[in-house]
Amino acid sequence: MDTQTAAAAGVRKVALMIRGVKVAMLTTTAPDGTLHSRPMATQEAEFDGALWFFTKSGSGKVDEILHDSEVNVSYAAPEDHRYVSVSGKAALVRDRDKIEELWSPVYRPWFAQGLDDPDVALLRVDVRKVAYWDMLAGGMVTMPTEEEADR
Amino acid sequence: MDTQTAAAAGVRKVALMIRGVKVAMLTTTAPDGTLHSRPMATQEAEFDGALWFFTKSGSGKVDEILHDSEVNVSYAAPEDHRYVSVSGKAALVRDRDKIEELWSPVYRPWFAQGLDDPDVALLRVDVRKVAYWDMLAGGMVTMPTEEEADR
Ligand SMILES: Cc1cc2nc3c(=O)[nH]c(=O)nc-3n(C[C@H](O)[C@H](O)[C@H](O)COP(=O)(O)O)c2cc1C
Repeated sequence: MDTQTAAAAGVRKVALMIRGVKVAMLTTTAPDGTLHSRPMATQEAEFDGALWFFTKSGSGKVDEILHDSEVNVSYAAPEDHRYVSVSGKAALVRDRDKIEELWSPVYRPWFAQGLDDPDVALLRVDVRKVAYWDMLAGGMVTMPTEEEADR
Repeated sequence: MDTQTAAAAGVRKVALMIRGVKVAMLTTTAPDGTLHSRPMATQEAEFDGALWFFTKSGSGKVDEILHDSEVNVSYAAPEDHRYVSVSGKAALVRDRDKIEELWSPVYRPWFAQGLDDPDVALLRVDVRKVAYWDMLAGGMVTMPTEEEADR
């Protein structure tokens, strides 16, 4: 497999692993060094290389990310023994078109005013490294594989 | 409520919130700054102020913790909309009595030799800060509360 084919296969595999997990835990580092996590509604659209979340632009997690952009997003589907760890860098995105493209009523509980909320924004997590555990894999599988990462 | 009573109530509340969640995600910071998480079997014993996990002393997570002890442990029970974030400091514990006290056959899949595995050790996470979300609380509840933390 060449690098591009491997990368595409990696994206498909991650999409499969996180499919159907409606809530992920997003972990950030606070300025004092402590690690915080919180539940975040996942998007319905299929994973294509970046993860997207809706957030309020004035929230604690945004402050933390502007201070230190390294994050982890974890997915747990205990009923089928599926766990995924995504390491990446998060960025605040206020692009109106993207916000409208990704908006769904599932985010309503946290954004009562919906798209009219002046504080509504997106977090984009650019994926650097993924590890997953499932019944078939048994142990941990990491992507990119050591081989791919060395190229 | 005085500080001690509040702390005891906090411990009971956390015990209640994480009860029955068999797998938690443990997030650590790697030397290159990336955040990694992995599923960890939780202990059956009731939470009494510290979290304990079995680990191999030579594992990647132990290296990461020896380098940076700040960790997050997250618990997700999606079926009843319960999520918990525990921020704390992790330490490697090789105390034989404690290992024997906490050992249970549920850890067997990761320690085939059980207590005879020379590499078996514990991680103790001393809890600093907890946040939880549940249906009753609606939003996020943090402990210690700002008031308690200021004392
Ligand atoms: C099931 C669930 C899903 C959530 N989804 C989101 C979300 O998509 N976006 C969001 O900003 N907050 C969401 N929240 C609330 C966050 O967990 C958190 O309380 C809030 O964003 C403030 O976090 P912060 O102070 O760390 O920024 C959700 C909470 C729960 C319980």
